Amino acid sequence: MTQKYYAQIYVTLRPSVLDPAGVAVRSGVQQMGYDNVEQVRIGKYIEVTLNANSEDEAKTQLDRICDLLLANPVIETYRFDLTTVSSEVQTS
Amino acid sequence: MTQKYYAQIYVTLRPSVLDPAGVAVRSGVQQMGYDNVEQVRIGKYIEVTLNANSEDEAKTQLDRICDLLLANPVIETYRFDLTTVSSEVQTS
Repeated sequence: MTQKYYAQIYVTLRPSVLDPAGVAVRSGVQQMGYDNVEQVRIGKYIEVTLNANSEDEAKTQLDRICDLLLANPVIETYRFDLTTVSSEVQTS
Repeated sequence: MTQKYYAQIYVTLRPSVLDPAGVAVRSGVQQMGYDNVEQVRIGKYIEVTLNANSEDEAKTQLDRICDLLLANPVIETYRFDLTTVSSEVQTS
């Protein structure tokens, strides 16, 4: 039976990759007077709703989507949390 | 005593706001053959390391930083998770 899944995907730069946008934000934060902010790194957060026959199928698809479309594996890594959307929530 | 905190900030579009980038990604995913993907919404994920005297102080600062710099409160909402960075991790 097809089940609806909700995935929260986090795409982040690899630690060795420079993040100029993060440096710019830290500079802005420090100009606001918050000198105590040490580091800012910026990534992407993507919410995906999909239907799949099993959790494994959903994970396989999400891995492919992340590798090919959402993340650049040379400079970025990703991880995701997967939860089922209970069908009881739907109101007819 | 000053403590180091690690914050994970999620900035997302309000549900009522259209997300053209998300629609474009969904279209790309469907062209990959995954017709089962219903919705894609794109947000920002920001990691911040900061020093603060207490968890409350860190939260207050992060709220200000999010409101003024990271999120546009008209179209976006944010939330963050705050964890302490244990000083034992540091190697001298």
